[in-house]
Amino acid sequence: MKRNVSGPLYDATVLGNTYSDQNCSIAAALELVGERWTLLILRDAFLGTRRFDDFQRSLGIARNVLQTRLERLVEDGVLRRERYQERPERFEYRLTRKGVDLWPVIVALMKWGDTYAAPNGPPVVIRHAGCGGKVDDRRICVKCGKHLEAHEAQPEPGPGALPTAAA
Amino acid sequence: MKRNVSGPLYDATVLGNTYSDQNCSIAAALELVGERWTLLILRDAFLGTRRFDDFQRSLGIARNVLQTRLERLVEDGVLRRERYQERPERFEYRLTRKGVDLWPVIVALMKWGDTYAAPNGPPVVIRHAGCGGKVDDRRICVKCGKHLEAHEAQPEPGPGALPTAAA
Repeated sequence: MKRNVSGPLYDATVLGNTYSDQNCSIAAALELVGERWTLLILRDAFLGTRRFDDFQRSLGIARNVLQTRLERLVEDGVLRRERYQERPERFEYRLTRKGVDLWPVIVALMKWGDTYAAPNGPPVVIRHAGCGGKVDDRRICVKCGKHLEAHEAQPEPGPGALPTAAA
Repeated sequence: MKRNVSGPLYDATVLGNTYSDQNCSIAAALELVGERWTLLILRDAFLGTRRFDDFQRSLGIARNVLQTRLERLVEDGVLRRERYQERPERFEYRLTRKGVDLWPVIVALMKWGDTYAAPNGPPVVIRHAGCGGKVDDRRICVKCGKHLEAHEAQPEPGPGALPTAAA
């Protein structure tokens, strides 16, 4: 996880803009998904959000920031942009395989947040769609023991969920 | 994972400085560990780094930035500051239980980076210290099947590791 220093140390008085001189898969992963809001965009993508306005409504961030993040994710191959309407032309954003493979990161962050930063209980509970069992922090169904992939999981409101506007 | 909107939407033209109006464990986790460099500090802590100068050497970031990040992690209960020398007084930083519980996040990021951002192969391979088996992305030993905790895992240089300066 730690780079091995193979050359002279770079200037340590400047805060680097990238982690690129770290020979480390964690640093490399953060280089791609560590930007502010990016993991929350991906969270929404896992929940089925595909359209710009829906991401924007969910996240409440500036449109230009969202646009930049989405474009970066498309460039990096984490999302793909797909036309869903011809006139006028409209596009949606879908997870690629590379994007879906971030599910373990999303689940790990969620489980840790559930334990340490959810005083009213988990806002969301993930269940195995097949048998209804809860999903543990290794993405294993606690009921049937299946090692789950993202498409087999189903989120539902947990005890810490807020009442919806409609309720 | 997505907040339910229970009130009027906040001003969407401003990029929020926090994710605090998201009722979401992922957002809450990122609020604590999503800051630039923080997860790399924790990576080093998992590799056994404890002292300020060692973190600084490994990360190559400005001392004031490192100091701020470490203080924040202590405040948040992810690291604890412990005196290891009396005269002069010197302190080291150790993972708390809350910090150790971030291991799944670290492993998930590493495994994804190994797959998608390690063209020369994984810089680091994690093994089950008990039997030497590799650790998979569910933190399960592929050899003996044990569901591993952080203290049972042992990092070693992988095929993508750089030659060390000494080599």
